[in-house]
Amino acid sequence: MATDPAELGCRLRDGDRSAAPAALNVIENRSDRDATTSLLHEVSPAVLGGEPEAHVVGITGPPGAGKSSLLSVLVSEWRERNKTVAVLAVDPSSKRSGGSLLGDRARIEHDPRDDGVLIRSTAAGGRLGGLAAATREAAEALAPAFDVVVVETVGVGQSETDVEDVCDTVAVVVQPASGDVLQFLKAGIMEVPDLLVVTKADLGDIASRSRRDLNQALKAVGSPDVPVLAVSSVPPPAGIDELADALEALRDRADLGERRVRARRGAALREFAAEHGERALRELGGRRAAERLLEEQDRGASVTDLLAVLEAAT
Amino acid sequence: MATDPAELGCRLRDGDRSAAPAALNVIENRSDRDATTSLLHEVSPAVLGGEPEAHVVGITGPPGAGKSSLLSVLVSEWRERNKTVAVLAVDPSSKRSGGSLLGDRARIEHDPRDDGVLIRSTAAGGRLGGLAAATREAAEALAPAFDVVVVETVGVGQSETDVEDVCDTVAVVVQPASGDVLQFLKAGIMEVPDLLVVTKADLGDIASRSRRDLNQALKAVGSPDVPVLAVSSVPPPAGIDELADALEALRDRADLGERRVRARRGAALREFAAEHGERALRELGGRRAAERLLEEQDRGASVTDLLAVLEAAT
Repeated sequence: MATDPAELGCRLRDGDRSAAPAALNVIENRSDRDATTSLLHEVSPAVLGGEPEAHVVGITGPPGAGKSSLLSVLVSEWRERNKTVAVLAVDPSSKRSGGSLLGDRARIEHDPRDDGVLIRSTAAGGRLGGLAAATREAAEALAPAFDVVVVETVGVGQSETDVEDVCDTVAVVVQPASGDVLQFLKAGIMEVPDLLVVTKADLGDIASRSRRDLNQALKAVGSPDVPVLAVSSVPPPAGIDELADALEALRDRADLGERRVRARRGAALREFAAEHGERALRELGGRRAAERLLEEQDRGASVTDLLAVLEAAT
Repeated sequence: MATDPAELGCRLRDGDRSAAPAALNVIENRSDRDATTSLLHEVSPAVLGGEPEAHVVGITGPPGAGKSSLLSVLVSEWRERNKTVAVLAVDPSSKRSGGSLLGDRARIEHDPRDDGVLIRSTAAGGRLGGLAAATREAAEALAPAFDVVVVETVGVGQSETDVEDVCDTVAVVVQPASGDVLQFLKAGIMEVPDLLVVTKADLGDIASRSRRDLNQALKAVGSPDVPVLAVSSVPPPAGIDELADALEALRDRADLGERRVRARRGAALREFAAEHGERALRELGGRRAAERLLEEQDRGASVTDLLAVLEAAT
């Protein structure tokens, strides 16, 4: 079996989904960073001379909101629309329990014989409340080979920030009467997502009220145009068609290219600080100086390229 | 006016609360780390040859849970019990808004002429979902001069972890029917706090049900003995006396010394990684190797001492 990282990268670039599991193994092996670099070198947008086709969608929200059930029906909907889908489920890990909670999480249901779907769980590994660099790299590697790449994370409030640096579109999923997300939004602490999804619409009144409350909160923080959709994942599913449409509309929005440039710069800055520490950032003259340095780079530069620029400057 | 950092440290060590505001200014000035080091050198437990007297209490929870109203009445209760109190309110900052939300947060009410109370707000600054090292240093500096030092933060779920490294006791505050905290607890993602406080007990049934749900969740995650208290902060306040008693009982528990040793080691590791990056941690042989190195140090070593050990090893 060929597991040469560059070859895996080439196969993904050419849309060969069968290279995905081995490529993810390379990326998750954090002790051989060079292998990941050569893999990404082949798939990076700069090398391709264009943006990857996949729509990278972040699905985030508190535990119990129904993210896995929603993804089960949403993946089916995408498959009916002839879209291939990869789901990267980022698993929160507890410091006290010391490990990942993989065993406990709800499963995303899919047909295991369907090679148009890939589901992969990874532990967030120490980076509390954050997305590991590995998740960003995995999304980047899979982007040329799948139509939709989903990054699923657990979080409320500030943890969405990292998702933003990785995803084209961020959807926050809440269950009806889940007041804390509403409070974070109202307090202006939570970054406003691109889309809010209220699950368990089959609960009727309570779901409608949640939707109304979220709409009001969005208006109060100056984002009245963010869609709030209500869905039900229990058979017969409801609102899934509308959700897929809303996501497609977000994928086609005019400022997506601009957002991807900003996100790559944001990811480079965050990963540089995590790898080399705040001290290295101070050596560059502080966060703002580092941001200015990144803004001078080519808009098509990959995160790997941008990281190299920051590293060369220290 | 003398603002010599070492002198400020000496004054705090000797219980002179009037040195506190100037000391906090020194600590918040992140460009002169040496000043903070000399200040802390004077107050550090290792130098004192004993543990500081203050009970360092973390008060955390989602926005809107009523933390500020609760602290207003709790501070009064502590003052009636002749305890001096410092509150360090850590302000979340939004990446998009770029700044602190100080202006928006509810105020903790107190008598400004009472020099037994100090309230200070600080921006969490960039460290998303985390406590800045400055907060740990501020709590350490104030500990010899106040009976209670409160660290107030906004968060749900994983952000409590950092609070644990700074505080002797962590209380999570939730409003009735605030389902997300419950979900994080049930999912085993949230570290189990020392105490849970349900606010708005005046709401009656809904508060009682929240209390029951939280008790059930605590039993399910194997922590049935964690107290869940219901309080009301609106006049006439209710449950505040019991809360102050519960916190005092937690302050007197037998394993507090052990917990402080672990917390200092945890804080040193976290601050080392933030300052020098994951790469420096790998150079030490990884997180476990660094932990072992810290475990070999004197139990009375301060965080500053422990940081110096890690830095010397790289």
